[in-house]
Amino acid sequence: MVPKVVDHEQRRRELGQAVWRVIRRDGVDHASVRTVASEAGWSPGALRHYFATQSELLAFAMRLVVERIEARVAALDRAADPRQAVEQVLHELLPLDDERRAENEVWLAFTARALIDPQLHAQHNQVHDALHQACRSALETLAVHGPAHASPAALQAERLHALIDGLAVHTALRPDLMPPDSIVAVLRLHLDALHREAA
Amino acid sequence: MVPKVVDHEQRRRELGQAVWRVIRRDGVDHASVRTVASEAGWSPGALRHYFATQSELLAFAMRLVVERIEARVAALDRAADPRQAVEQVLHELLPLDDERRAENEVWLAFTARALIDPQLHAQHNQVHDALHQACRSALETLAVHGPAHASPAALQAERLHALIDGLAVHTALRPDLMPPDSIVAVLRLHLDALHREAA
Repeated sequence: MVPKVVDHEQRRRELGQAVWRVIRRDGVDHASVRTVASEAGWSPGALRHYFATQSELLAFAMRLVVERIEARVAALDRAADPRQAVEQVLHELLPLDDERRAENEVWLAFTARALIDPQLHAQHNQVHDALHQACRSALETLAVHGPAHASPAALQAERLHALIDGLAVHTALRPDLMPPDSIVAVLRLHLDALHREAA
Repeated sequence: MVPKVVDHEQRRRELGQAVWRVIRRDGVDHASVRTVASEAGWSPGALRHYFATQSELLAFAMRLVVERIEARVAALDRAADPRQAVEQVLHELLPLDDERRAENEVWLAFTARALIDPQLHAQHNQVHDALHQACRSALETLAVHGPAHASPAALQAERLHALIDGLAVHTALRPDLMPPDSIVAVLRLHLDALHREAA
C-alpha cells in the first residue's frame, strides 16, 4: 500500500481558493467556518486544522490577501522608469478593481477586529510593518533616481502610508465617491508633489 | 401638582456622560446597553428611547463624538495666523490625547460596523462628508491667505482627508509608533509641503 501523502500546501491552496470564492460572493462579514467548509466540500473537522473560529478565518483570509499582493508584485513586468515602477507597486496595494476591493474589505474588517483581539493584533502589526516598509522602499527608489528629501524619511514614509490606508478606508465606505481614477489621481498628485518638494 | 416636565435634552446629556464614562473605562467594544444602563442608574427600558441595540449604542456614541469635536472647535481661541488656526482645527480631529484617542476608537469601530450595517452606513456618510468639508475649508483658508494651488481642490481635499483618516487608523492600532508628536509632525510636513507646492 502506498502511504497517503497529505500535501499540506496543496490543501491549503484549495482551501484558500474556497475562502476567496466565499468572500467574493458573500462578503467578508458573511464568510463563516460553515460556509467555507461547504464551499470547499470539506468537513468542519477537516477545516479545524486551518481555522476553527471566525477570528481565525479572518486571520487566514488576511494571510491570503498578503500572499496575493506579494505574488502580484513579484510578477509585475516593471517599468524601466523608477517613478512608473513605484506606481505599479503601490497600485497593487490599492482597491482599484473588484479583486483588490475584496482584499481591501478583508483588511478593514481584520484591522477593526485586531483592535479587540490580541492574536489578530500581532498579525496586524506584521502586515502594518510590511506595508510601511513598502512605502519606505518606494520613497527610497524615488530618492535614488530623483532629488533627495530634506525631511526625515520616517515621517515621509508615515505620510505616504497613512495616505494609502486613508484612501483604502474611504474606498471601502464610499466607493461611489472613490472610483479607481480618483484613487490613482490622488496618489499621482502626492508623488508629483514629493518630487517638487525635494527638487 | 406641577406636571413633571421631562427635559429630553438634559436626560440625553446625562446619558451621553454615562456612555462616555463607560467607553473611557471599558473601551468601546465592551460598552453595552446593560453596562450603560447600570452606569447611568437607568432601567434598560428607559434607555430604549435612546438606543436598544449595540448598533444603536455605537450610533449614539458616534453622535457624541461629533458633538464633542464641534464643541471644541467652536470654543477654540483661534490664532490670528491662518495656518496656525487651520492646525488648531485639524488637531481637534486627531487622536492627540486620551480623550481624542477614545473618540478615535469609537470612529474606527463605527466605520468598520458601517460596512455591514445600512443604518450606520447612512450616518457614516454624513460624518465622512462633514470631515471632508472640514478638510476642504482648511485648504480654502490656506489658499486665501497663501499661494493658490493649480491642482483640483477636490483631489487636494481627498488627499488631506485620507492622510488624516490614515493617521487615525494607525494611531488606533499602533499607538506605540504614533505618539502625538509624530502625528503633529506628519500633518505639519504636509501643510508645509502644500504651501511650497503652491508657491
